[in-house]
Amino acid sequence: MNPSALAETYHGVRQRTLALASPLSAEDCCVQSMPDASPTKWHLGHTTWFFETFVLERWEPDFKPFDPAFRVLFNSYYNAVGDKHPRPQRGLLTRPGLERVLAYRADVDRRMQALLAAPDGALTVLLQLGLQHEQQHQELLLTDIQHLFSRNPLAPAYGEELPSSGTPPELGWHVFAGGVTEIGHTGEGFCFDNETPRHRVFLQPYQLASRLVTNGDYAAFIAAGGYADPVFWLAEGWDWRVSQGRTHPLYWRESNGAWQEFTLAGLVALNPHLPLKHVSYYEADAYARWADARLPTEAEWEHAAGNAEGLSQLFTEAWQWTSSSYAPYPGFRAGAGAVGEYNGKFMVNQYVLRGGSRATPAGHSRPTYRNFFPAAACWQFSGIRLARDV
Amino acid sequence: MNPSALAETYHGVRQRTLALASPLSAEDCCVQSMPDASPTKWHLGHTTWFFETFVLERWEPDFKPFDPAFRVLFNSYYNAVGDKHPRPQRGLLTRPGLERVLAYRADVDRRMQALLAAPDGALTVLLQLGLQHEQQHQELLLTDIQHLFSRNPLAPAYGEELPSSGTPPELGWHVFAGGVTEIGHTGEGFCFDNETPRHRVFLQPYQLASRLVTNGDYAAFIAAGGYADPVFWLAEGWDWRVSQGRTHPLYWRESNGAWQEFTLAGLVALNPHLPLKHVSYYEADAYARWADARLPTEAEWEHAAGNAEGLSQLFTEAWQWTSSSYAPYPGFRAGAGAVGEYNGKFMVNQYVLRGGSRATPAGHSRPTYRNFFPAAACWQFSGIRLARDV
Amino acid sequence: MNPSALAETYHGVRQRTLALASPLSAEDCCVQSMPDASPTKWHLGHTTWFFETFVLERWEPDFKPFDPAFRVLFNSYYNAVGDKHPRPQRGLLTRPGLERVLAYRADVDRRMQALLAAPDGALTVLLQLGLQHEQQHQELLLTDIQHLFSRNPLAPAYGEELPSSGTPPELGWHVFAGGVTEIGHTGEGFCFDNETPRHRVFLQPYQLASRLVTNGDYAAFIAAGGYADPVFWLAEGWDWRVSQGRTHPLYWRESNGAWQEFTLAGLVALNPHLPLKHVSYYEADAYARWADARLPTEAEWEHAAGNAEGLSQLFTEAWQWTSSSYAPYPGFRAGAGAVGEYNGKFMVNQYVLRGGSRATPAGHSRPTYRNFFPAAACWQFSGIRLARDV
Amino acid sequence: MNPSALAETYHGVRQRTLALASPLSAEDCCVQSMPDASPTKWHLGHTTWFFETFVLERWEPDFKPFDPAFRVLFNSYYNAVGDKHPRPQRGLLTRPGLERVLAYRADVDRRMQALLAAPDGALTVLLQLGLQHEQQHQELLLTDIQHLFSRNPLAPAYGEELPSSGTPPELGWHVFAGGVTEIGHTGEGFCFDNETPRHRVFLQPYQLASRLVTNGDYAAFIAAGGYADPVFWLAEGWDWRVSQGRTHPLYWRESNGAWQEFTLAGLVALNPHLPLKHVSYYEADAYARWADARLPTEAEWEHAAGNAEGLSQLFTEAWQWTSSSYAPYPGFRAGAGAVGEYNGKFMVNQYVLRGGSRATPAGHSRPTYRNFFPAAACWQFSGIRLARDV
Repeated sequence: MNPSALAETYHGVRQRTLALASPLSAEDCCVQSMPDASPTKWHLGHTTWFFETFVLERWEPDFKPFDPAFRVLFNSYYNAVGDKHPRPQRGLLTRPGLERVLAYRADVDRRMQALLAAPDGALTVLLQLGLQHEQQHQELLLTDIQHLFSRNPLAPAYGEELPSSGTPPELGWHVFAGGVTEIGHTGEGFCFDNETPRHRVFLQPYQLASRLVTNGDYAAFIAAGGYADPVFWLAEGWDWRVSQGRTHPLYWRESNGAWQEFTLAGLVALNPHLPLKHVSYYEADAYARWADARLPTEAEWEHAAGNAEGLSQLFTEAWQWTSSSYAPYPGFRAGAGAVGEYNGKFMVNQYVLRGGSRATPAGHSRPTYRNFFPAAACWQFSGIRLARDV
Repeated sequence: MNPSALAETYHGVRQRTLALASPLSAEDCCVQSMPDASPTKWHLGHTTWFFETFVLERWEPDFKPFDPAFRVLFNSYYNAVGDKHPRPQRGLLTRPGLERVLAYRADVDRRMQALLAAPDGALTVLLQLGLQHEQQHQELLLTDIQHLFSRNPLAPAYGEELPSSGTPPELGWHVFAGGVTEIGHTGEGFCFDNETPRHRVFLQPYQLASRLVTNGDYAAFIAAGGYADPVFWLAEGWDWRVSQGRTHPLYWRESNGAWQEFTLAGLVALNPHLPLKHVSYYEADAYARWADARLPTEAEWEHAAGNAEGLSQLFTEAWQWTSSSYAPYPGFRAGAGAVGEYNGKFMVNQYVLRGGSRATPAGHSRPTYRNFFPAAACWQFSGIRLARDV
Repeated sequence: MNPSALAETYHGVRQRTLALASPLSAEDCCVQSMPDASPTKWHLGHTTWFFETFVLERWEPDFKPFDPAFRVLFNSYYNAVGDKHPRPQRGLLTRPGLERVLAYRADVDRRMQALLAAPDGALTVLLQLGLQHEQQHQELLLTDIQHLFSRNPLAPAYGEELPSSGTPPELGWHVFAGGVTEIGHTGEGFCFDNETPRHRVFLQPYQLASRLVTNGDYAAFIAAGGYADPVFWLAEGWDWRVSQGRTHPLYWRESNGAWQEFTLAGLVALNPHLPLKHVSYYEADAYARWADARLPTEAEWEHAAGNAEGLSQLFTEAWQWTSSSYAPYPGFRAGAGAVGEYNGKFMVNQYVLRGGSRATPAGHSRPTYRNFFPAAACWQFSGIRLARDV
Repeated sequence: MNPSALAETYHGVRQRTLALASPLSAEDCCVQSMPDASPTKWHLGHTTWFFETFVLERWEPDFKPFDPAFRVLFNSYYNAVGDKHPRPQRGLLTRPGLERVLAYRADVDRRMQALLAAPDGALTVLLQLGLQHEQQHQELLLTDIQHLFSRNPLAPAYGEELPSSGTPPELGWHVFAGGVTEIGHTGEGFCFDNETPRHRVFLQPYQLASRLVTNGDYAAFIAAGGYADPVFWLAEGWDWRVSQGRTHPLYWRESNGAWQEFTLAGLVALNPHLPLKHVSYYEADAYARWADARLPTEAEWEHAAGNAEGLSQLFTEAWQWTSSSYAPYPGFRAGAGAVGEYNGKFMVNQYVLRGGSRATPAGHSRPTYRNFFPAAACWQFSGIRLARDV
């Protein structure tokens, strides 16, 4: 990428984050609805901190932090950088106020301007990482706001509903022959370290569903007693269901015998044609078992996505749970220094999701992309694509 | 009180609440730092809800609520009024925004205007209750903001520090002869139901300290190992101290061997001459035992306060823990209807505090006033006045 | 008491503890069903430890502990004596086995024999304290076993049911004129330190119920929706009821529309004529409010018990919750040394029960006796005697 | 296996369980030290319940359960069989007593005798499953007793210490070329369903350590600050370490600057030459990172174990954590009926251990055997064999 394209990309991504926050009040931006979610203001500050810490501090002559306190407040989890503010307490930070965090953004953007004019290779690498990182937080900003608003009895809307896709195509099954194949990223474009190295895997023959499970499909599972019979569930999933009192997906609500769904557009009638969203791994696995199918492995998913004729909704609707626990690829090496903490240290007790969602920034994802969340996570745009043995 | 005085009082109290909130941002007003504390915005809404629910709804012709949803959101604990929003979730309400809650206040104040012109007796009673209630929340607003700011690493200041009182007088002991005496409220002025009925009690002879325990006094207790030896503590207090890891009062911090205190004016050097504030019942009781004294009963305190020559700092510095568990007076009857839930249903496992604090509105307290909090509560302006047997 | 009577009393009390344990297997004696309860084996060891620690260690020439480890294992809460084994872990002590604890008892009894022949006054005082202490543990042994067996799906019986009392007398109300009276212990007989000093109190006129609330009375409260309406409950009591899912007393069970009760004789049909047992303070208070009455204060109870004509079931059926928080009497001084930890350090957030129960050893209680438990405690033989204002 | 060999095996396995329990008192057999562990008595009953439920009930003419209540009490997790007693409450079952559970064992063994004389194929399959199941519980019985005794301040010994192996061989690295290979069970002998089907996998070239990590190796990790620096740990592992306050393995204790280890033989000086045992996945992973290595995958382990020249301590010392999350093999199908709940429903958030331990019954394990535990589990005989990329 040449410098001016890079600068344009930088400003485009940075601007989009502000645009996403623009429908929100300072109050909306400040509150944290659960330890797993972060306030919008924190997302705004942390993505800026990333550039200040990993780019400006290294390349800016006479670097001085905008505010030394922000070094701690907006550090997410990088131990190598120093102290960090405890995650569950991010919502207590009424100060710095939103205005000051926006000033922080503006100041860092201004200072980045100079560096963007003549970036060297190492800076370009970190810049790209910072932009990809910010795009990840753009999606999180939306999932976190949706969760916050879902806890408000007023059920406020963040924005307009996306236009409904029409009746989904009939679910078809695509057969893949398996054998030795390769997965993982290679080549020029950006990727995260967890997508490397590209390596060989052996796949048994398998089938993959042509589209995602719909709300209507899932409603049939519920109607058939899917939440009442442990036979469909992993033991840990059943314990989760019982202890949480779940009888339907997180954002579904029953009203006079009909399903409603809480969305970024507020509370709406459930559209049976839309892909199911916001289910846990446990729910995805239980549905698959009920449907006499299973979840795909991430290798199956990636192999199919590279041979994708006939497969729809790969990147555009909902991330797709795979049965693969998040683990390092053979030969994986985390990067040196603090950015090496980006991915590797989370590789335990999480499951990989593949694809992308309505909330994923355009161009952010790719077939080798590895998203990951704990099995109980529901507040992401997480859905289901079924697989089967041949 | 004649109508115009009543209206003046009403507007004075209502205005003071706004003034207390005025140094705060919308973000400051929205966040809840612990389940025991409430957001400023909630205090603003709830005190308004009180007038709307208990006055306007009954006396306003063609009453219509400002917003039906507020009926639930701003109900604190009145079961007779209907549903209520769970207390620990008050901080999730980014909507309604501060502006809208201020509009709610203005609307209710406007509608109250008409009723204030010609109040009947029953309305006057509820109006007074509403104003006293709002004054209680004025103090809570300050204690809750102090707690919120104490959790922020930036240690923000709410306002200017109050001028320090000078060196405290020598601690003296005032002897009271005891015998049959009366406590509880009687006569014309306002009181809460829990101060009635006035009734006889028998007091043994006792002594009461002329002034409150100072920060310096308490620092000596700490220096003498007071937090390291269970002999000074109630068993439950010691368990509390250990499980919470307390080695000093809530808002004290050690810095290079010197004590600092987090106050509404931010972090300041501890002033040894000021009365101690923000201690739990457990700490108060332990200090008293170490000092070869005890906490007074509420009857002792009230009797002394009515014969107060030589006693200072009764109402002006910090509420004073008594050894009296909060219980109904003999013959106590809660009021009929929803306002009967004001006091009576909290009469278990709480301890009575007497007096008043720097944060108590002028004229709000009186010798018969019964404040009450659980033994572990520290975030109030709670201090210690010692008693002794004769 | 002369030495031989003292020795006889000693052996009687010690023998009765063994008799109470005799229907139990070594397994029954070892397990702890909740942190509040202790294993029988621990009761056997701890009561022995009391004599070893407070009598033998001081008076026995060439004292050597039976087993140094027991000094820690069987210390309940005496900080002055040294370390103690954590209470919630008492049930993990499969070693020492029951046989060894019985050998410990036998050894201490043997060594006590010598001292009992010629006790001096101080020894007599501690001996009596030790025997009263052991009688308290006799009742706890029974309540703790009942709780353990209640958690077993086999619902095992400890022993024969006590013969049912017949139809209870009509409930009558006895009026007391009040005024200045005295409560607290004085005179020759044994008492605990918390019963002293005797002191004057002022009582308003009051009425006290002639008998205890029966199971039938309480079933009527349940049938009338008593567990469904917060109006009858203290706020904390209602929260307790909801969070615990309580819809009836701890040991009641519904079976085909009829009430059963789990007792020391196993699961039996609920006898409506028997006094209600095993209710919390919250339940007692709620029942009283529903019955248009209240709980008595401990002073009211004691004053009435000293003028007890017409009052039945004072000491023989169930301890009676009072509305009095457990607090030191005016002028109370805890004893010097470790035994001073016996009572005083528990004087916070507990409520006084008066009287005695079916499980209380004969002669153990008296009108001035102060039993105490937290408001949520249900597993004791705790019942209700109503009071009313005149 | 011919009938008489089968009967002999049956009695051998059943007898060994009794032998393992024989050093224990009834009290030792009754208590549960944590929800993850079960009482010995429960192991004795549950393994018997397995034969009664899955064999006798199906094949015995005129089947009648020994005790209908045991059907629930000794069901571990089979939903298809009916109700089950909650796992964390297994330790409350002082009844049935040990004697009665031993009678249950004897009765079922007697009734099995008749069936063992002429087993059909289906019965043989279930019988073998029941015996393998009982062998698994033999190891659990030992790990659970060690945990119980570790919580006892007396540190009781279960038995004699096993003879120490001498100085371990120098750690060597064995290189494997990788490529397409097969893992999983095939052929005649017994295996669990989770070992099937045998299937192809692709392995990158890798190295495997010739021996296990020793106590001495691990002590060097601690001495080098391994528990003080998050750089070595997974994020979740570090949180676990901090919240649990771990600074060394579960059963290590420091005494005057030297390490001791609590073992089945009681508290002994740590032997630096013995393989490390009782570490969590988090600790194993952290050690590996510190040692510039990693944990093997289960496929790497199994492939190496089938080509095991030069590898020692594969099955005889400690189970070896692998980096493989426990998941179904491609094409895995759980068995029909209740025994289908044996393995499949636990395939989430657990990690596979391979090999065997000192506590594993002879002949029980094999190269394809998949043991599994959550990442935080420490109380098993779990150790470390390192791997490296080539």
